[in-house]
Amino acid sequence: MRTVDYYFDFSSTNSYFSTFMLPELCRRNGAVVRWLPLHLAALFRGTGFDVMAMTPRKAHYLWRDHARYAEATGLPFRRPRRFPMKTAMALRAVLAAAHAPAAQGANPGGLCSEAAGRLTQAVFRAYWERDEDIADRAVLARSIAASGLAPDAILAASDSQAIRDELAAIVEQAIKRGVFGAPIFFVGDEMFWGKDRLDFVERWLQRTPPDLGDN
Amino acid sequence: MRTVDYYFDFSSTNSYFSTFMLPELCRRNGAVVRWLPLHLAALFRGTGFDVMAMTPRKAHYLWRDHARYAEATGLPFRRPRRFPMKTAMALRAVLAAAHAPAAQGANPGGLCSEAAGRLTQAVFRAYWERDEDIADRAVLARSIAASGLAPDAILAASDSQAIRDELAAIVEQAIKRGVFGAPIFFVGDEMFWGKDRLDFVERWLQRTPPDLGDN
Repeated sequence: MRTVDYYFDFSSTNSYFSTFMLPELCRRNGAVVRWLPLHLAALFRGTGFDVMAMTPRKAHYLWRDHARYAEATGLPFRRPRRFPMKTAMALRAVLAAAHAPAAQGANPGGLCSEAAGRLTQAVFRAYWERDEDIADRAVLARSIAASGLAPDAILAASDSQAIRDELAAIVEQAIKRGVFGAPIFFVGDEMFWGKDRLDFVERWLQRTPPDLGDN
Repeated sequence: MRTVDYYFDFSSTNSYFSTFMLPELCRRNGAVVRWLPLHLAALFRGTGFDVMAMTPRKAHYLWRDHARYAEATGLPFRRPRRFPMKTAMALRAVLAAAHAPAAQGANPGGLCSEAAGRLTQAVFRAYWERDEDIADRAVLARSIAASGLAPDAILAASDSQAIRDELAAIVEQAIKRGVFGAPIFFVGDEMFWGKDRLDFVERWLQRTPPDLGDN
């Protein structure tokens, strides 16, 4: 089955939108999402800070743009009070979900599992729809439970050294692939940045033979 | 007739693309482009620098993205050797073209005239398709001639104080409207940034009654 490698961080507004748009895009093209939690703070330490320069007039525009985009997509986006947000624990929880027993048996499992996708979407909803503090352990536990996973087991696994190492390894691999922000998508070796390139992701999936996209 | 106010600078890669996409979009929605040459260097002096932070890895990606975008649109975009480019003289020539006799009688005239549009497209072609030095007076004269205008008369008018003042006034008005870069489009009071929002420009035209978009 073809995969789209999807690098996201919960701190990325544009990742909120693509998290809900990408799975449907993959479904209609016979592909699956490979959920790759990307710790942007760590990435920027390794590559240099690369977000957009932000004067108040541009920030003002961007919130208006997000509101219009939410209206166009029907997604219940809401500007959160807390920003920036510490996301490392929530990102590790996604990795723990990928290894959880509930994710086993799913085809494909691991980072392509439905459990990883469900928890990713649940955390984005908590932060970007309900304005919750996803750096708070109790808040995160609710998102885990909402995804059909066991909060205590997932949180315990999230704290393990193995999962911490896995999160760091994703950043390292991302740097080697040329990643500089989020959301970023790969179809094979072709990289796409931003929700505004989802149409290109779809076009590339359609022109790429299934075996080239395999992982 | 409804208008879309279009702020562009020849130094903006993304303005190259929108310069050729916007007129067709307007045509199919019964609107006209109001060509507003925006001197970005002057705008940034007034508002603070607001372009994207650019590490080598992001720059590398963006050129690849532009190449894909050119392929998708069929536009013969080519990465120029000269960058950045001094654009003030070419921007003033567009204003002179809007006042030229050839632009009179066109409906509507002035900044909405076909002459202003033709010269804008000709200069973008020279820089972003043929890698020409558009800060060179002889090169600019060729673009003016290609637009069906008289190079000597347009260049003389471009040097006048009246046209210099008009270019400065456009920046001042842009700052008051919240503009922070290019390309930027207005449908009535609604502002859109970037070629990736042309679909929103079209949606807004379709939901805006003609009188609201009038100028």
